[in-house]
Amino acid sequence: MATVTLTTDFGISDPFVGIMKGVLASRAPAARVIDVTHAIPPQDVLAGALVLRHAAPFFPPGTIHVAVVDPGVGTARRALCVETTRALFVGPDNGVLTLAAEAAEVRRIVHVTDERFFLSPRSTTFHGRDVFAPVAAALATGTPAPALGPAATGMRRVSVPAVTKEGSGLRAEVIYVDGFGNLVTNVSHDMLPSGPVAIRLGSAYIRGIAPSYATVAPGQPLAVVNSWGLLEIAVREGSARTALGGGVGALVIVEPAAP
Amino acid sequence: MATVTLTTDFGISDPFVGIMKGVLASRAPAARVIDVTHAIPPQDVLAGALVLRHAAPFFPPGTIHVAVVDPGVGTARRALCVETTRALFVGPDNGVLTLAAEAAEVRRIVHVTDERFFLSPRSTTFHGRDVFAPVAAALATGTPAPALGPAATGMRRVSVPAVTKEGSGLRAEVIYVDGFGNLVTNVSHDMLPSGPVAIRLGSAYIRGIAPSYATVAPGQPLAVVNSWGLLEIAVREGSARTALGGGVGALVIVEPAAP
Amino acid sequence: MATVTLTTDFGISDPFVGIMKGVLASRAPAARVIDVTHAIPPQDVLAGALVLRHAAPFFPPGTIHVAVVDPGVGTARRALCVETTRALFVGPDNGVLTLAAEAAEVRRIVHVTDERFFLSPRSTTFHGRDVFAPVAAALATGTPAPALGPAATGMRRVSVPAVTKEGSGLRAEVIYVDGFGNLVTNVSHDMLPSGPVAIRLGSAYIRGIAPSYATVAPGQPLAVVNSWGLLEIAVREGSARTALGGGVGALVIVEPAAP
Repeated sequence: MATVTLTTDFGISDPFVGIMKGVLASRAPAARVIDVTHAIPPQDVLAGALVLRHAAPFFPPGTIHVAVVDPGVGTARRALCVETTRALFVGPDNGVLTLAAEAAEVRRIVHVTDERFFLSPRSTTFHGRDVFAPVAAALATGTPAPALGPAATGMRRVSVPAVTKEGSGLRAEVIYVDGFGNLVTNVSHDMLPSGPVAIRLGSAYIRGIAPSYATVAPGQPLAVVNSWGLLEIAVREGSARTALGGGVGALVIVEPAAP
Repeated sequence: MATVTLTTDFGISDPFVGIMKGVLASRAPAARVIDVTHAIPPQDVLAGALVLRHAAPFFPPGTIHVAVVDPGVGTARRALCVETTRALFVGPDNGVLTLAAEAAEVRRIVHVTDERFFLSPRSTTFHGRDVFAPVAAALATGTPAPALGPAATGMRRVSVPAVTKEGSGLRAEVIYVDGFGNLVTNVSHDMLPSGPVAIRLGSAYIRGIAPSYATVAPGQPLAVVNSWGLLEIAVREGSARTALGGGVGALVIVEPAAP
Repeated sequence: MATVTLTTDFGISDPFVGIMKGVLASRAPAARVIDVTHAIPPQDVLAGALVLRHAAPFFPPGTIHVAVVDPGVGTARRALCVETTRALFVGPDNGVLTLAAEAAEVRRIVHVTDERFFLSPRSTTFHGRDVFAPVAAALATGTPAPALGPAATGMRRVSVPAVTKEGSGLRAEVIYVDGFGNLVTNVSHDMLPSGPVAIRLGSAYIRGIAPSYATVAPGQPLAVVNSWGLLEIAVREGSARTALGGGVGALVIVEPAAP
């Protein structure tokens, strides 16, 4: 049984996601469809790429991941299918697939052009329904990726802000804010200095990396390595975004601290 | 395998939808259940009817569509099962089923009365759980619609505001606002004049129908024919509701424009 | 086919729930996974316990209910599997499982310790992914509960505020507010006096228990016995929370009234 995941910025107020599932149920009735999330901030390709990158590894091999964060829908931007050693990724060529695809080994990139696999007529505003869901259904029912169109030699990338060295510390930033208000940074656990550290965000100064959320008092800020392997600034049983004021792009300094 | 869809105003904060799925899993274990949406504005029968009408055609033939937007729950309002040449629709007799049912050919309308198919005891506040989910489960496991109760000769309708001619243009209105803030009107694409047009909404004046969202600059308003075949007023990478100020019921004028 | 339900406070903005479903699809591909809700207020163990208690009875016998409202994640709080005569419950030992488990007959409580059933490496912040989903997958694929770890002799409880007698009436409180703004109290229908009653909440005075929401005029307050068998204060086609001002913990008085 094929597994298809959906990651979009469609929200859940409207029937858009349900309609995509209707197309999948019609064309690939045996496929299992799983929502990753539909609450990517509208048109935020980087957030979509980050979410997909950290979710995809937990799905079965061969999963077909559909990501529709698509500000260029209806323009000449390409539709892609990226096949890796582990999974298939379907979506617009705007970078939303790249972080997840390149966390595995990319085997081929296909420019999806064969209209036999699309709905007809095709709208210019909802390729989730008219292109990406039916293409995922084709893959789920055994169509090989190369049948979808010609090979492409590359894809557009999304860029994750880089962490830079600053003295003996790191200059980093918040790249994602989760629904609890936790501030996720671009510092992966293997970048952290080996000795004691402190983290600065705005006027907050946090000493040390906590082993878990519950090791400080309720309402207190802390830093943890989160489930994505990234440094995260949180407030126990509260919202770091509200309490500390940082959002995506906020500067984070990691510096050595006295033990 | 039967497919059952759910369209409600229950929201997703509470376990109400999960409970309906529990009833379906208990009574029709082989059925596939798909959410259309649970974010119909509370008691907004017209919004529910519009959503179901534009979602249902994308589901497999024979799908059982359950719609529960039910301000009259616990009163004498009837429960209906409407069978069309394409699908089955189950819900209260308040108009929520009509637009979708009549987009196909109605074969029969059944007044659902046979309590053998309901949960017992039956609450007066949650017929999604006690009536509509178990009736859908009965249909999904092979009970024919006429077994649910006597034939009904009609059903209550929901009325979509009409578009009227105004000079050589159209007087229309916003009938649905989606989660992106796009303003969906009651003007279907086949009503549009053949020549160049302009659209007025409040103080906004939009020239022409754009081929897609991305053909104007970010932040600019545009008009498109959306994926439901309806004229829609949008703001690229923004919210037309916020930027232009219109909600459901707002007046929209479509008029001829110089080319 | 095993059924697994998920009740969490993870929200749906992030991919956390999708990731849990990825783990389940990987390890228990034949299981059906149903969301109860992911909108439990963050860290609100009582709300999670109430929701699970009123949802679980509607699922098939043998269902595996996973509840992750887990402010103590990463600390020494135990992971539990509670087996009843009807179902299996998996979650942290903080009371979130107790109301549902004890609504049936508890057969055994297992302290889940065997790391063979967990993901490795295991984060300290996301046991939904690393502990509870894989343990549910183990149960769904036939692992008996006792294989997960040693028997436990008890579990932590969550306490539902008690209703007390006050004269010939009852002193009660709001214990849950649903997404419509309905105020659910701790008064079960069998506690209600047999004669005519009136309900006080703040400055609101409501005479009688209405048979359904639609028996008063729109905008008017009413009291009903809701689908959980509990006394609920509502406003027809409105929000009692907004209109009457009560939230969780608000005092509710039930008193005899003249007929």
